[in-house]
Amino acid sequence: MVHPVSPLAPKSYPDLPEIGGVRFATAEAGIRYKGRTDVLLAVFDPETVVAGVLTRSKCPSAAIEWCRDKLAGGKARALVVNSGNANAFTGIKGRESVALTAQIAAKAVGCREDEVFLASTGVIGEPLDARKFEGVLDRLAGALVASPWMEPAKAIMTTDTFPKLATASVEIDGVEIQISGIAKGSGMIAPDMATMLSFVFTDMPIAAPVLQTLLAKHNQTSFNAITVDSDTSTSDTLLAFATGKAQGIDAIVSLDDPRAETFGAALGDVLFDLAMQVVRDGEGATKFVSVTVTGATSDKSADTIARAIADSPLVKTAIAGEDANWGRIVMAVGKAGEPADRDKLRIAFGDIVVARAGERSPDYSEEAASAYMKGEELEISVDLGLGDGTATIYTCDLTHGYIDINGSYRS
Amino acid sequence: MVHPVSPLAPKSYPDLPEIGGVRFATAEAGIRYKGRTDVLLAVFDPETVVAGVLTRSKCPSAAIEWCRDKLAGGKARALVVNSGNANAFTGIKGRESVALTAQIAAKAVGCREDEVFLASTGVIGEPLDARKFEGVLDRLAGALVASPWMEPAKAIMTTDTFPKLATASVEIDGVEIQISGIAKGSGMIAPDMATMLSFVFTDMPIAAPVLQTLLAKHNQTSFNAITVDSDTSTSDTLLAFATGKAQGIDAIVSLDDPRAETFGAALGDVLFDLAMQVVRDGEGATKFVSVTVTGATSDKSADTIARAIADSPLVKTAIAGEDANWGRIVMAVGKAGEPADRDKLRIAFGDIVVARAGERSPDYSEEAASAYMKGEELEISVDLGLGDGTATIYTCDLTHGYIDINGSYRS
Repeated sequence: MVHPVSPLAPKSYPDLPEIGGVRFATAEAGIRYKGRTDVLLAVFDPETVVAGVLTRSKCPSAAIEWCRDKLAGGKARALVVNSGNANAFTGIKGRESVALTAQIAAKAVGCREDEVFLASTGVIGEPLDARKFEGVLDRLAGALVASPWMEPAKAIMTTDTFPKLATASVEIDGVEIQISGIAKGSGMIAPDMATMLSFVFTDMPIAAPVLQTLLAKHNQTSFNAITVDSDTSTSDTLLAFATGKAQGIDAIVSLDDPRAETFGAALGDVLFDLAMQVVRDGEGATKFVSVTVTGATSDKSADTIARAIADSPLVKTAIAGEDANWGRIVMAVGKAGEPADRDKLRIAFGDIVVARAGERSPDYSEEAASAYMKGEELEISVDLGLGDGTATIYTCDLTHGYIDINGSYRS
Repeated sequence: MVHPVSPLAPKSYPDLPEIGGVRFATAEAGIRYKGRTDVLLAVFDPETVVAGVLTRSKCPSAAIEWCRDKLAGGKARALVVNSGNANAFTGIKGRESVALTAQIAAKAVGCREDEVFLASTGVIGEPLDARKFEGVLDRLAGALVASPWMEPAKAIMTTDTFPKLATASVEIDGVEIQISGIAKGSGMIAPDMATMLSFVFTDMPIAAPVLQTLLAKHNQTSFNAITVDSDTSTSDTLLAFATGKAQGIDAIVSLDDPRAETFGAALGDVLFDLAMQVVRDGEGATKFVSVTVTGATSDKSADTIARAIADSPLVKTAIAGEDANWGRIVMAVGKAGEPADRDKLRIAFGDIVVARAGERSPDYSEEAASAYMKGEELEISVDLGLGDGTATIYTCDLTHGYIDINGSYRS
């Protein structure tokens, strides 16, 4: 089933620059889809470091287990991604498939197996025949290019309706550093460590542990701050590769280096951009919604309440119906189980305060609230009036489109 | 908007007997609906005891706060229920409205105000004008009857597509004891202490604390074991009234009395029956699903995992699509955060084992699984292979009907 492009899709795609030390190629391996690319091979120059955050699912895919193990080494020479089959819950066959894929890739690229990183996305439970990669990866290794980035972004899509790319550059020590990333994700989005799949590439010279810390930090306010349907994938993977190819600049080897924050902020911009694109491609989405909770007893408490609102089917369907149904926000705050005092609550849609002090705002205008709800980008703000805790979660509405996409046979 | 009767509705309704000491009447007060009853007054003979479990929402309705306060007294003479307006999040106006309603009811019935119990269901945030009850309750107090129970069951409905009634009788000391109940609920169903609204009546002589303990116990495996959409209401109320009118039988005044278990089991049957009817009227439901988790490290852990499966939008849409998509069950187990070992998991649909030992069952038949999913009543079983913890949660699928009902303006 082909679904129309999300109405929230970006109107144009950024032009990602080549990143020194990164080359890639894509192919149609026919893993599940016909007539589209479904395998990405990215190859990195020697000395490229890697960091990553992976799903905390108790039932992770075989590729997740492989990456978790190999991340300890901190070095990467190749990345192999396939779409169409998640190679999750495939038992010993899954582990063998992952090992064989790494072996094939290492041979094609000319590196060690533990420098190969792997990610798979698609149907869960279907064994993935790694022999399909045999000729494919050899061919790809002989056809590597440094652009255009649209190709790898497309090769990793599953139910995505548009490819997701983001880029940022930052001047450090007078040198322009490039950071570019791609992501895929549309449903099964409530990342607990990362989104479905995202890969970020930079030419910054940086030590792996520093990159790891920065990645984990900025992941919290980007991929870990989005939810489409409260369902967490078995395959969530965010990997960052730093080739160190930028010339005339010393490596960041410590978090105490003030350049770590500068670089981290730019990295954070790319992650945030990609994460918002995942929400904008939320299955069936017609509205982009930010839910901000302030005045909670702690940031963690604010996060729990913001998620309760963002994940509530009744809130999400009301938004789809353009209904300023703030009673459902009250319900969601109430069910979150976190400290809340009904009589101190303040709820706003955009600038329109709909409720405060435990009741409907005296100057509430249904007309104004309804007009606001017709917009494509909505802001829901809840102030609890109890403390300084804040959190923002990004989500989308719940529509017939979500049911169409997920209620059809084995989407 | 009028929605068609749920395809999962019971084919017939039970004929509830009169309960000695209980009389009631209903009226059209025009609170929100036109052309249907929306107020129920039930009146109890003196010495009737009451027990109840109420929502744990942090934003409860004014009626919930009233009931919580008055339950301490353990005595009830009247119950007033209105549909169409939940009188929740209505601030000081809500509290005044509740107090005035109790005052009007007490005068009409001739009892103390703290013997009046109240419940409201419907839109949140709209002030409820209690003066509407003034003439209405007087008239109702003069028109009390002991049957038919269909009338009160209908008066408390909101988005319900069918009235919910259940009854049981049990012989204790050679006396036939009657227990009957009604309930309403269809959406915003993930009770944390009770369902939306349910009222149970019995002629058993029983002390209020004993009734309270039995009610809370059996609520756990009935109303607290269901979920339609993971959203918990601000108004969840389950009240049980025992008139003690059964003749020739001593009251149960202690949980050590062996008759408490006998009576409790029958009470539990009525609660379970009503709770299953709420699931069967789940908004948009086309399938009734039980999710049983065994082999967990504790009952609580099993409950968390069963809820993660039952609340997963991806699992629920797959069921709607009659897709034996057990990969989504794996996902839900994985996201629950409870101890689980992928390689020990066993998943079955009905008697069909689809996965075991961390991969698809070797004798898995897509054809057989698909045929099973076409049924209207489905059983999903997950064994974790870790311990003795078990739990069963009852739910329904997630369909276009749910979006229709909740995505329309202020349903």
